[in-house]
Amino acid sequence: MTTMTARERFLAACAGRPVDHVPVWFMRQAGRHLPEYRALRRDMDFWTSLTTPDVAARITLQPVERYGVDAAVLFSDILVALPAIGAPVTFEGGKGPRVLEPVRDAEAVDALGDASMSDLSFLAGTCRAVREASPDIAIVGFSGAPFTLAAYLVEGGGSKDWAKTRAFLHDDPETFGRLLDKTATAAEAQIDVQIDAGTDVIQIFDSWAEVLSAEVYRDVVLPHLSRLVTHVQDRGLPCIAFAKGSPHLLEVVAESPAAVIGVDWRVPLDVARHRTSGRPLQGNLDPALMAAAPEVAVAATRQALAAAGPGGHILNTGHGLSPEARPETVAAVVKYVQSATLVKEAP
Amino acid sequence: MTTMTARERFLAACAGRPVDHVPVWFMRQAGRHLPEYRALRRDMDFWTSLTTPDVAARITLQPVERYGVDAAVLFSDILVALPAIGAPVTFEGGKGPRVLEPVRDAEAVDALGDASMSDLSFLAGTCRAVREASPDIAIVGFSGAPFTLAAYLVEGGGSKDWAKTRAFLHDDPETFGRLLDKTATAAEAQIDVQIDAGTDVIQIFDSWAEVLSAEVYRDVVLPHLSRLVTHVQDRGLPCIAFAKGSPHLLEVVAESPAAVIGVDWRVPLDVARHRTSGRPLQGNLDPALMAAAPEVAVAATRQALAAAGPGGHILNTGHGLSPEARPETVAAVVKYVQSATLVKEAP
Repeated sequence: MTTMTARERFLAACAGRPVDHVPVWFMRQAGRHLPEYRALRRDMDFWTSLTTPDVAARITLQPVERYGVDAAVLFSDILVALPAIGAPVTFEGGKGPRVLEPVRDAEAVDALGDASMSDLSFLAGTCRAVREASPDIAIVGFSGAPFTLAAYLVEGGGSKDWAKTRAFLHDDPETFGRLLDKTATAAEAQIDVQIDAGTDVIQIFDSWAEVLSAEVYRDVVLPHLSRLVTHVQDRGLPCIAFAKGSPHLLEVVAESPAAVIGVDWRVPLDVARHRTSGRPLQGNLDPALMAAAPEVAVAATRQALAAAGPGGHILNTGHGLSPEARPETVAAVVKYVQSATLVKEAP
Repeated sequence: MTTMTARERFLAACAGRPVDHVPVWFMRQAGRHLPEYRALRRDMDFWTSLTTPDVAARITLQPVERYGVDAAVLFSDILVALPAIGAPVTFEGGKGPRVLEPVRDAEAVDALGDASMSDLSFLAGTCRAVREASPDIAIVGFSGAPFTLAAYLVEGGGSKDWAKTRAFLHDDPETFGRLLDKTATAAEAQIDVQIDAGTDVIQIFDSWAEVLSAEVYRDVVLPHLSRLVTHVQDRGLPCIAFAKGSPHLLEVVAESPAAVIGVDWRVPLDVARHRTSGRPLQGNLDPALMAAAPEVAVAATRQALAAAGPGGHILNTGHGLSPEARPETVAAVVKYVQSATLVKEAP
């Protein structure tokens, strides 16, 4: 097989087609574990770095330059989508994002917009700047899943247990369903601007799905996730669906039409293959391995590659990198993946 | 069947013997959702309330008096065990408990004590005061599981992802195993003082096991959990093992000899029966239901009782009550459980 560009390799893996080596990238590869990121962010707040395309593109490219990963994930946030339906969000104060007007009853749900009404052009700028700097890389755009966006709206920000969200869902599943309609619309707005600007693949993060049972997820949430996945794939891009921290939801997420299913680090990839009927998979190193010694992480990578088998696999962590990740360990894993599975062209 | 005392009922359910109705209590039933708790705590810090037997007993009994639940869980904390092996803990500052000297290398592990060396007699005082006030209630004592206690020691307090703990475990499983030996000793100290004072049952909380895969849990952690369970059951009390938030660990926890397995709210009880080979179970309402309307929670309770089947079941939530729990909903669930399953004595 001739050598592929990173973009070709990534798209081939998403489609389950042969690759020269397993593509590799990491969720939150652009972020606090990198000294160059910390340096750049020293004098700049999160929101400014996010909405200034040159800066966001530079951050996006830092791990590409350092590690030679196969994909660049746009430096952004799933909550930038919420203003699109009239729900303002602030990232100020260093205590995580806050939704200024929490949505806790039918009236508040119905007051949300039904169509995009905010300017997300900064995202397009970031995407174009990344493409210009790195024409052959796979660019991963993303959005939050309808449930996760709804959870932020209900709680008014992050939460330890998302109890208000579940209470709302249990109390009034019909209104909660209308809320999911609205947040799916917000996510579509974020997705569309990224696709228009040249993103190669969209990952949908259902970051807080973990608090739901499979039964509730299937009944209430899955139709809205599937709508979003279909929206992406109807535009010709593969979609990666990832429910962080949800080993118990793997089968249900795989009932969506997503081309690729993201796998938590607590489900071995051979088991995940079985539970997703052989779908292409992304994952699933324990991100804590990246804070361990390089040889420990490489040994686990060897296991993960073996468990996944030869095709339809994108090597990633099973959750975002933490600030404790050691760059030398991340580098060793990337090098191992790219050399271990390289098949030279026949002479 | 003649009417049983709460204590008889609880112990019968733990042993899978017939009961007049399914016993019911809730994790964190004594706590912030109760106005009488908030009133009592208004002028008293957490540590004082914990270590003053009369106060801790009063808090322990508040939900018994209000709801008529079948068990009183001692108002305490799993971290009171850590000073027993020479690791001081502070609960000051309102930001959650802190371990004053985090344990992050072999030297720090070996510096921890091998035997109990602190005074936990306040726990005995609480237990005796509860027994005196309520002779027929089942008293649930508890401790943290070796892994969860170790995680607090490594991180120095709570953590969002417990990444340092997992990095330690991956990097040096042998030293981490020695740490688990020490934390099991600490847990035994807390357990022994409770058993000596008349506790009826011990629940072991592996509150952060959720971050481990089944494979790692089985290899590294399970032997230490089983040691603790055996310690309890050799003293003649049933032990409830509960790995919060860990639907993926159910089978592995059930490989311990615990008489009863606690079940997360995301695993239906009929599925849990199957996955634990028919073991007596405790659980598993979604605690968020307790913040919903009474009829919503009662409908879910009916489902849970049906899924569990007639015996070997203690009704509980699948995680602690949150401050948002509504007392009228909790009361309705207790009333439903105690009336729905009552079998009158034959005339």
